[in-house]
Amino acid sequence: MIKVAGRAAVPPFAVMDILDRVAQLRAAGRDVISLCAGEPSGGAPDDVQRLAAQAHADRLELGYTSALGLRTLREAVAEHYRAWYGLGVPAEHVAITTGSSGAFVLAFLAAFDVGDRVALARPGYPAYRNILRALGCEVVDIDCGPADRFQPTPAALDAVVADSGPLDGLVLASPANPTGTMVTRAELDALTRWCAAQGVRLVSDEIYHGITYPADPAAPDARGVCAWELDRTAVVVSSFSKYWGMTGWRLGWALMPADLAPAMDALAGNVALCPPAPAQLAALGAFTPAAYAQAEERVADFARTRSVLLGRLDRLGWGPVAPADGAFYLYADLGEQLGHFPDSTAWCAALLEEAGVAVVPGSDFDGANGHRFVRLSFAAGAAAVAEAVERILAFQAAHA
Amino acid sequence: MIKVAGRAAVPPFAVMDILDRVAQLRAAGRDVISLCAGEPSGGAPDDVQRLAAQAHADRLELGYTSALGLRTLREAVAEHYRAWYGLGVPAEHVAITTGSSGAFVLAFLAAFDVGDRVALARPGYPAYRNILRALGCEVVDIDCGPADRFQPTPAALDAVVADSGPLDGLVLASPANPTGTMVTRAELDALTRWCAAQGVRLVSDEIYHGITYPADPAAPDARGVCAWELDRTAVVVSSFSKYWGMTGWRLGWALMPADLAPAMDALAGNVALCPPAPAQLAALGAFTPAAYAQAEERVADFARTRSVLLGRLDRLGWGPVAPADGAFYLYADLGEQLGHFPDSTAWCAALLEEAGVAVVPGSDFDGANGHRFVRLSFAAGAAAVAEAVERILAFQAAHA
Repeated sequence: MIKVAGRAAVPPFAVMDILDRVAQLRAAGRDVISLCAGEPSGGAPDDVQRLAAQAHADRLELGYTSALGLRTLREAVAEHYRAWYGLGVPAEHVAITTGSSGAFVLAFLAAFDVGDRVALARPGYPAYRNILRALGCEVVDIDCGPADRFQPTPAALDAVVADSGPLDGLVLASPANPTGTMVTRAELDALTRWCAAQGVRLVSDEIYHGITYPADPAAPDARGVCAWELDRTAVVVSSFSKYWGMTGWRLGWALMPADLAPAMDALAGNVALCPPAPAQLAALGAFTPAAYAQAEERVADFARTRSVLLGRLDRLGWGPVAPADGAFYLYADLGEQLGHFPDSTAWCAALLEEAGVAVVPGSDFDGANGHRFVRLSFAAGAAAVAEAVERILAFQAAHA
Repeated sequence: MIKVAGRAAVPPFAVMDILDRVAQLRAAGRDVISLCAGEPSGGAPDDVQRLAAQAHADRLELGYTSALGLRTLREAVAEHYRAWYGLGVPAEHVAITTGSSGAFVLAFLAAFDVGDRVALARPGYPAYRNILRALGCEVVDIDCGPADRFQPTPAALDAVVADSGPLDGLVLASPANPTGTMVTRAELDALTRWCAAQGVRLVSDEIYHGITYPADPAAPDARGVCAWELDRTAVVVSSFSKYWGMTGWRLGWALMPADLAPAMDALAGNVALCPPAPAQLAALGAFTPAAYAQAEERVADFARTRSVLLGRLDRLGWGPVAPADGAFYLYADLGEQLGHFPDSTAWCAALLEEAGVAVVPGSDFDGANGHRFVRLSFAAGAAAVAEAVERILAFQAAHA
């Protein structure tokens, strides 16, 4: 017998069963509204598609680019930080990566050794924990609830250290998946100070920056606060996938702190060779005024859908909600509405069969408390969300 | 102070200094012939470029595909195995990956735990060892020389086990980089039997399959023997990068043994989400008769260049050479011609400065004996290689 690695035992995602069943039902002619998507619809900006079409029509071949990406694209990302955050980022500190996934793998390998302890908010994006465990790190959960808007605090980190010992890393996501909550500048400042005092490396997931719902869009920090505004020892991770809608292109980036940059460069060449070259060339089109304008239209759509959903929360009768400050998710405790179902996974399965509405159960994001929660995505648009809410209300009434 | 991970200490590649200096010299107007390239020139087949151009012109967006890739592409790869090897491969066992790099990361994570011992031929492709070490595995060198054509044998593996204990894995590359040597069907059969008897997982790098120089192109096994012809517990890794010239696209695949497939599927979704979607769509064009014909033209070019180089070996006066059976490299012991230089890194640096010819020193591939070796790539074509040989002869005469 030849072994399978123990570290390859990744827990299955409940959403996969949901998505398979959605496909089956649709193939059978059922009208199903899916609020499962972790990706915006509409795709890449026109200027990106145009550059890609032209490059391929011209049979342009870049071969392997530098491991950290095309210099012109690294410069364009640096300029994006100047435009959005007023932040001077040297292009040499921008690593273009194969999606944010590629950036996380690089950052985790460069920052954390086997056995290192890395803290994550729970609920959180499951791939963080699964990548870290596969790389031999110990994942330390920070139990977060609606009271602290699902974000870690210095007090919660102190409690974790008192309970189980010192940490080596902290992964922070703002806006977060599945909750959409954000940390303010003051909260991020407190967290970076805590990390600095404890010698903890901060990895800041900012892939949903720009998809935000501020009361005043002209206010400072409206698009999110970049960790580098406060602490240049953090690794900042971002992506073309969400704000620009380029999910399948697999292109993201990291801002590399000076001490990690040589290691990230060397690792990138070995682990990935380079990010996809045609996508890099096309992504230069993401920074045109027209491309930003198209992205902002999509954000405005999300904002309308969010209002539709938040406006119906009272009628849904779920538990207390921390409204999403960004991203395109609502993470909600079903509360009393869980009814006779043993958990939200069973609730979601029944909702899909009976009402033709697909949402993701919380267990994928939180192994401790997620059994009461569901995640709804607004990516389907306002009309679909409004109809889905009516169907959920009827489903809940039938099970009351 | 915040730490940098010990595992991030990847040794630098000597070729990087060479490539930087090539760029400097060319910028200064020097005529430099580079025989460093690990990628074919000419790029993707026309049918691939056409599909890509059309998809982008149509603004086609796939979003995230399945973690293991588009079903149609997995089926096309399966059909490729039927056409080339007469091998029935279920499409469910084909994992489309982000280049062969993505396939190696997946395979290593699924097959090997932290501390597992994985054997590699030395000389070998440095990224294998660097990825394995970053993932916490122990790399066990198999010292290979021209006598065994730089490939491991059961006897060499027995010696390694006797010397340092049992193995968990073996990475085999045929054709290999940097040597281009291949294992025959009988040799591969002996190796798979040895692995089965020892409970060792074989990872078979077949990315250069199809770029081969058989005496009889119609002979069985002319394109290389696929490990799955002999052993379905092996992980087979291949790529669109070499035979089809799609290096920058970052698209490859793995054939997944039944016991590893669930783990590789789950890991793929977490580590990479999915391979680049536009590239997947375009890669369907790699399997047309016209695309195969274009690839074969490039192989014929490599064969002509190889003949030019092998025909001049006597005049070069280097040590005994194992002529490449495939890929597009020659790996040669400089022998007497190393002359007064302390090692091939110094020899290569002087050759570049004095003769304007860039080749890669062997130390990147073999930390023990590579200091006497160089790797030459035929990707530059027959005329460039012929001119490079004349310059090398003059350089050697000047230092004799």
